[in-house]
Amino acid sequence: MKPIKIGLLGLGTVGAGTFRVLRRNQQEIIRRAGRGIEISMIAVRDLPKAQAIVAGACEVVTDCLQVVNHPDIDIVVELMGGTEFTKELVLTAIANGKHVVTANKALLAIHGNEIFRAAQDKGVMVAFEAAVAGGIPIIKALREGLTANRIEWVAGIINGTTNFILSEMRDKGLDFATVLKQAQELGYAEADPTFDIEGVDAAHKATIMAAIAFGIPMQFDKAHVEGISALQAIDINYAEQLGYRIKLLGIAKRTTKGIELRVHPTLIPSNRLIANVEGAMNAVLVQGDAVGASMYYGRGAGAEPTASAVIADLVDITRLATADPEHRVPHMAFQPDSIRQEVVLPMAEITTSYYLRLSVADQTGVLADVTRIMADFTISIDAMLQKEPAQDETKTDIIMLTHQTQEKNVLAAIEKIEQLSSVYGQVTKIRLEQLS
Amino acid sequence: MKPIKIGLLGLGTVGAGTFRVLRRNQQEIIRRAGRGIEISMIAVRDLPKAQAIVAGACEVVTDCLQVVNHPDIDIVVELMGGTEFTKELVLTAIANGKHVVTANKALLAIHGNEIFRAAQDKGVMVAFEAAVAGGIPIIKALREGLTANRIEWVAGIINGTTNFILSEMRDKGLDFATVLKQAQELGYAEADPTFDIEGVDAAHKATIMAAIAFGIPMQFDKAHVEGISALQAIDINYAEQLGYRIKLLGIAKRTTKGIELRVHPTLIPSNRLIANVEGAMNAVLVQGDAVGASMYYGRGAGAEPTASAVIADLVDITRLATADPEHRVPHMAFQPDSIRQEVVLPMAEITTSYYLRLSVADQTGVLADVTRIMADFTISIDAMLQKEPAQDETKTDIIMLTHQTQEKNVLAAIEKIEQLSSVYGQVTKIRLEQLS
Repeated sequence: MKPIKIGLLGLGTVGAGTFRVLRRNQQEIIRRAGRGIEISMIAVRDLPKAQAIVAGACEVVTDCLQVVNHPDIDIVVELMGGTEFTKELVLTAIANGKHVVTANKALLAIHGNEIFRAAQDKGVMVAFEAAVAGGIPIIKALREGLTANRIEWVAGIINGTTNFILSEMRDKGLDFATVLKQAQELGYAEADPTFDIEGVDAAHKATIMAAIAFGIPMQFDKAHVEGISALQAIDINYAEQLGYRIKLLGIAKRTTKGIELRVHPTLIPSNRLIANVEGAMNAVLVQGDAVGASMYYGRGAGAEPTASAVIADLVDITRLATADPEHRVPHMAFQPDSIRQEVVLPMAEITTSYYLRLSVADQTGVLADVTRIMADFTISIDAMLQKEPAQDETKTDIIMLTHQTQEKNVLAAIEKIEQLSSVYGQVTKIRLEQLS
Repeated sequence: MKPIKIGLLGLGTVGAGTFRVLRRNQQEIIRRAGRGIEISMIAVRDLPKAQAIVAGACEVVTDCLQVVNHPDIDIVVELMGGTEFTKELVLTAIANGKHVVTANKALLAIHGNEIFRAAQDKGVMVAFEAAVAGGIPIIKALREGLTANRIEWVAGIINGTTNFILSEMRDKGLDFATVLKQAQELGYAEADPTFDIEGVDAAHKATIMAAIAFGIPMQFDKAHVEGISALQAIDINYAEQLGYRIKLLGIAKRTTKGIELRVHPTLIPSNRLIANVEGAMNAVLVQGDAVGASMYYGRGAGAEPTASAVIADLVDITRLATADPEHRVPHMAFQPDSIRQEVVLPMAEITTSYYLRLSVADQTGVLADVTRIMADFTISIDAMLQKEPAQDETKTDIIMLTHQTQEKNVLAAIEKIEQLSSVYGQVTKIRLEQLS
């Protein structure tokens, strides 16, 4: 059978990795797919650079439209990034009857509903394993491996840059700015790290996981997005003393009132396996009603790990190309006519536990005032740590872990606490999840 | 579209779990599969007990042949266990054009080649996600999620009973026999635990993983099988002092000389994530050339975790039923005509590191004698621990960790060492893997 023909948009890190792995493991891939997978055209911005990589193995052009409109191309692989022009290219490829593989989480989190509708109408596949957690086949696990389950929640370390920074802050006791600079020098953080450190990238991925776990549309605009740039080393240290690690988690949770979709720094008990996922590694923990907890761990970024996911999608499409379109794995895990709009809860309505740090005057009565306010808002305290004031200091820290409560109660209590004359500055609040 | 019809063989723990989860999550499963999945007939040994569970929801019979020969049944789910009569039933179902789902690792490790050949000839699917690591979708990860990779090795904690026993031995300092008894009382070990504790169950699963990771036939008879019944608490303790944990691993590894396929207790560095998989949980670590290390963690046994895998297979078959048989996911991950016979190395030819414990006379010169013998067999020592003799004792322990070497060298060195008059009894040998 003749090889399936690929058109590639973009030959950056991941594009070059895909090109390299496809060639290196050509024989192994044919043995699995039953058919060759061949890149026949690549669209790039920098022609000479691309030609040096490709070395005449396929045609290289600068016009993306040449790829998406080429009659011989079966699958368009989009690895160029961006959301607006890229959306148009992807929709054009679909309109031309081509299958699409993309690693672009922003594109799917923002325009996924529209793209999948177009693909459905046209009977083509849009595959996106590489969009979440790089080389870890988490999309496949959620869409196919766990189909027996009512999925209750998904919680993931899905941004390697921030996990690297948090690991370093903890290990070396350094502050955020110092570690970010090191991460940039080591290539673990981009020159403009905003999307990573402010949680936007994780929120794109959490949005995609929520959709396919629960059968709801992509709703990135409803996600709560909070990064790690305000996190202080002292809180990592206090958390450690209380038996917790701080990770940036993307959380999608089903509750009786609606869906929680949120990204924020989170305390996790140190003895949980996911709390021990260090450096730039990713891991996703999924709770299903039948399977219980299962976890998926691996490299969430990088040329070849991401290429691994891109090529797995190419093999899937090659294998499934002959299936009746109605019977392929649905793009969003659930059949298109069964995707349901469900409320994504505003942050005030979510329920979790909290770590609170207060800087207080070292005098009697402060703790009584604080705990009375907590009780007034029906927040019960699970653990407390009060530090001895340093020598010649009249200030000290109180750290409290709360039981489960609604966020609005905590916000209201914090407002009251900050009004106490014996409390200095703002209360630091970090959410805590038991993940059990 | 009318529901797909299931015939179930066996209604034990997993059968009843499958029945229950299919009914409980019926709506969720239809939303995913696009079609109902209905159990229409169950064959059991104990009719009254089964009728109490089923409560009239479907026909219950005692003759398995009624199920595999029934013209209305699309998929036969085999959850009865056994290898010989069961093989005949499965082959009959296939001959009748029915797809088969099985959780039976022994059946596949021993008769898989014959069963898959029959299925291929008939154009039906045989799915077996539940056969390895229960609810963890590891078969899917290997067959579909990691298709881009040349898989280098797979190492798994794939038997919950033995992992529970090892965790308890370590945590509580108890010996094997005591913990086994507790495990039996708690239902973590069977009344006859031989298959679990002697490594046979893990070897069935490792055989299956080796086949689909490397594209080789099932070769259970070539697997090295070694369990944990001879393991002593003292070695767990010494390993801990040296920074290692002991786990029963199933290992399948590709080397330039052939395939290593082995199950045995293994020292793993304590800081590896997989070393921290405790209790009855399972985890499989896979090393691919593109993706690097990835790990899959979850419950490896139990009614509903196993049912989760069985039902995922049912959904897969429902989704894929219309695909051209040539283009479905190949049973053994690689196309049938590309499965290659590769040498499975005899144990003497494998290469790894070793933990050795010697009971020696507390006198000068012993260590010199021992290390000379090691050097004679070109085994280099990575770490050593010599315990002070207990009061009034003239014996002491020497523990050595070796660098990588061939097993035959170690066996030869041990033989020489045991001949030394200053060495008492047998040398304890446990293999060590860095898993990196």
